[in-house]
Amino acid sequence: MVQRPRGTRDFGPLESRRRRLLEQVLDVEAVCAGFDRVQTPIFESLDLFTAKSGPGVIGQLYAFEDKGGRPLTLRPELTAPVMRMIAEGMRAEAKPMRLAYHGACFRYEEFKTGRYREFYQYGIEVVGADGPLVDAEVIALAVRMLHATGLKGWTLRIGHVGLLRDVLAGLGLSAEASEGGEAPTATAMRLLDKGDDAGLADLFAAQRLDAAGLDLLRALGDASGGRESIATARPLLEAHGLPLQALDALEETVEALGLLAPAPPSLEVDLRVARGLDYYTGMVFEVHVPELGGEGQVLGGGTYRLLHLFGLDDLDPSCGFGLGFDRVLLALEHQAEAEGRSEVLPGEAGPKTRVAVVPFRVPASAVLPVVAGLRDEGVVVDLELRGRAIGKAFSWADGVGASHVLVVGPRDLEAGTGNLKRLKDGVQVDVALTASDVLAALNG
Amino acid sequence: MVQRPRGTRDFGPLESRRRRLLEQVLDVEAVCAGFDRVQTPIFESLDLFTAKSGPGVIGQLYAFEDKGGRPLTLRPELTAPVMRMIAEGMRAEAKPMRLAYHGACFRYEEFKTGRYREFYQYGIEVVGADGPLVDAEVIALAVRMLHATGLKGWTLRIGHVGLLRDVLAGLGLSAEASEGGEAPTATAMRLLDKGDDAGLADLFAAQRLDAAGLDLLRALGDASGGRESIATARPLLEAHGLPLQALDALEETVEALGLLAPAPPSLEVDLRVARGLDYYTGMVFEVHVPELGGEGQVLGGGTYRLLHLFGLDDLDPSCGFGLGFDRVLLALEHQAEAEGRSEVLPGEAGPKTRVAVVPFRVPASAVLPVVAGLRDEGVVVDLELRGRAIGKAFSWADGVGASHVLVVGPRDLEAGTGNLKRLKDGVQVDVALTASDVLAALNG
Repeated sequence: MVQRPRGTRDFGPLESRRRRLLEQVLDVEAVCAGFDRVQTPIFESLDLFTAKSGPGVIGQLYAFEDKGGRPLTLRPELTAPVMRMIAEGMRAEAKPMRLAYHGACFRYEEFKTGRYREFYQYGIEVVGADGPLVDAEVIALAVRMLHATGLKGWTLRIGHVGLLRDVLAGLGLSAEASEGGEAPTATAMRLLDKGDDAGLADLFAAQRLDAAGLDLLRALGDASGGRESIATARPLLEAHGLPLQALDALEETVEALGLLAPAPPSLEVDLRVARGLDYYTGMVFEVHVPELGGEGQVLGGGTYRLLHLFGLDDLDPSCGFGLGFDRVLLALEHQAEAEGRSEVLPGEAGPKTRVAVVPFRVPASAVLPVVAGLRDEGVVVDLELRGRAIGKAFSWADGVGASHVLVVGPRDLEAGTGNLKRLKDGVQVDVALTASDVLAALNG
Repeated sequence: MVQRPRGTRDFGPLESRRRRLLEQVLDVEAVCAGFDRVQTPIFESLDLFTAKSGPGVIGQLYAFEDKGGRPLTLRPELTAPVMRMIAEGMRAEAKPMRLAYHGACFRYEEFKTGRYREFYQYGIEVVGADGPLVDAEVIALAVRMLHATGLKGWTLRIGHVGLLRDVLAGLGLSAEASEGGEAPTATAMRLLDKGDDAGLADLFAAQRLDAAGLDLLRALGDASGGRESIATARPLLEAHGLPLQALDALEETVEALGLLAPAPPSLEVDLRVARGLDYYTGMVFEVHVPELGGEGQVLGGGTYRLLHLFGLDDLDPSCGFGLGFDRVLLALEHQAEAEGRSEVLPGEAGPKTRVAVVPFRVPASAVLPVVAGLRDEGVVVDLELRGRAIGKAFSWADGVGASHVLVVGPRDLEAGTGNLKRLKDGVQVDVALTASDVLAALNG
């Protein structure tokens, strides 16, 4: 028997409904903030990702050739395809473009909980504007989205890699790579992000730098916390004669965020956040959910320079984020389970009215006009198609999630009526066999 | 510069909105008829399609191997994946299952209008029930969907390959393939579908069959037309002593269809429709749109035996259809263009209220609470992020499709107000800078 490929999933009726509802919840927030959905192909030229992504990503690509020998790959992420799309066909759009997208991405990696080879991302980009207010709009959308999903207990961490680079340069670390190795600033950012104090001390010693710089980095780390950490950081930077522009911008962003979105369950301003991708240049942010442990980052983004790679230098820097659709859903499911809730997303319980229509020993044609008329009114109607006896028909109706069963037997038909039964309490009523009468009985 | 792969498309804001609206229109009809959406992976094991599809499809697959050497392929269609999904995880669901799905499919073929290498299908299946009423439910859903899209001038052709096979067998054609060749019945069905009279005559001669059979086939062809063609066909079959069960079933289907769905613009009962796929066993149907010429078939389906290939013999036969999402949209766009309509789908014109908020020489923080408050109420709000002067800000607002512009300058701010301008007629009003006041002004 042919099986589903490893690391992929089928989504049945319940899961599909939930996933589509989550997408809708995210869409509502994106639309209200002026974002438009765009869509790119499932596969792209291999070049698109080898030009931009690190070797880690390249090794995980599902690459193949088309019959013309052109190297293609399933997309591992959605930012580069959207940038390519802008370069190919959207140069003339009003700036900034506010774009949202959602779709399947593919990475060949070991299969474990929350990591699939086919996974889904929802992302947004503000392209063609930058500054503290843009950063605030982007973070605010992330916060509003997570808030709308009903997710609880998450932490928003905001940092600024521009500030971090200023600090490291001010402490004497070089941003230039030496002999094919990593630039000392890059090494330091990686160590800071991991909280590797000993590694940092080694780096400072190897570079023969003043250990006072190490104390500053530690102090900035200790200052991380709520939004007051910006005020704590200011005199530390001033004492070392370091520039304050990035800190001022971050302060403006955090203030604007407070006006644009509800307060997140937990907010940390953490100047050590480095995000690990070279293309970030300014504000960076992440959202973590403790329930998911090592896979707990459900969202990440920031301000980046990427557009110049697509000949769109005038649109750099831009700002955006990616939301791990599967991980957010997994976290929501964990939380619902822990609280004994069957409803994972707000409003998940399906349509309240769903009528199973059972023609019993009468020609189906007797009930079809009512079936069609109710559907015309937007009522969900299941028609019994297997000629079941009454008892089995009721089991079937229950199985498909019907709220009501309309049975029409020979005597009903003579009287021009049907028997409508509400399943939750067994209340029955005879109704005339017209869509309007059945509708009135359903609502009344 | 990296380009989009041949035969694929990017969908910008307008196209994405239109495509999502079409999906919604189709979903509403599917949901009301009791169908649930399901979703399968973008790629499958190569075996899934080689087992079931003809060599024509195999040659067009985007096949590749994963890093473990397992042969995979991008899915060329969605029916086999859904059958695989049922076999792997849905055996216990209430019968019949009513399933709907929508997604990208992939075929390597020459790129021409309306044919893409990445294309989209919307399909439905009723699995685990059969008979005239099931057939009617399936066709009715197709009719209701196309009706809801606003598509015009389409033709629904209904046939019955079971009846056709009965007739051909009754005329002496063998259903057995001889020495690796095609079975004579299969050849005859292909010729009938193409309307190749001369080819049929050759076949009858080669098989040394009574030419009276040819006359019957011609007469059945001539009888094709509205639903009265069933009555016309009856005495023809009787005269040759051929079985009438399939014709009776078809008549019942067409009658039930008339009760379950609005009348299609044109209905043909055409007993020569063969659909060209071995797995159909009973009723078959197609929808054609004349505007699209050779690519004019926008929907097709019928009753088939496929489930036994997945170890689900008890669920055969089932019934379903596939709707060519791209072709339906193309036809709708052709029709809108021909009629000079800018609205391609009913209700396509976006949200009527969209407010561009312009903080002009005031701190953005002055307008952010209003921005957030309006978004909380579901109003689409674009915030000006580039510090444009007034004239350019209005051009930008027009460019993003705003219906209103709210400008807050230094004097407004002192007064605690903003100036709200309706773009279509230039009417202006000063409003207090609270979301509720702005909302009242927008609605009033």
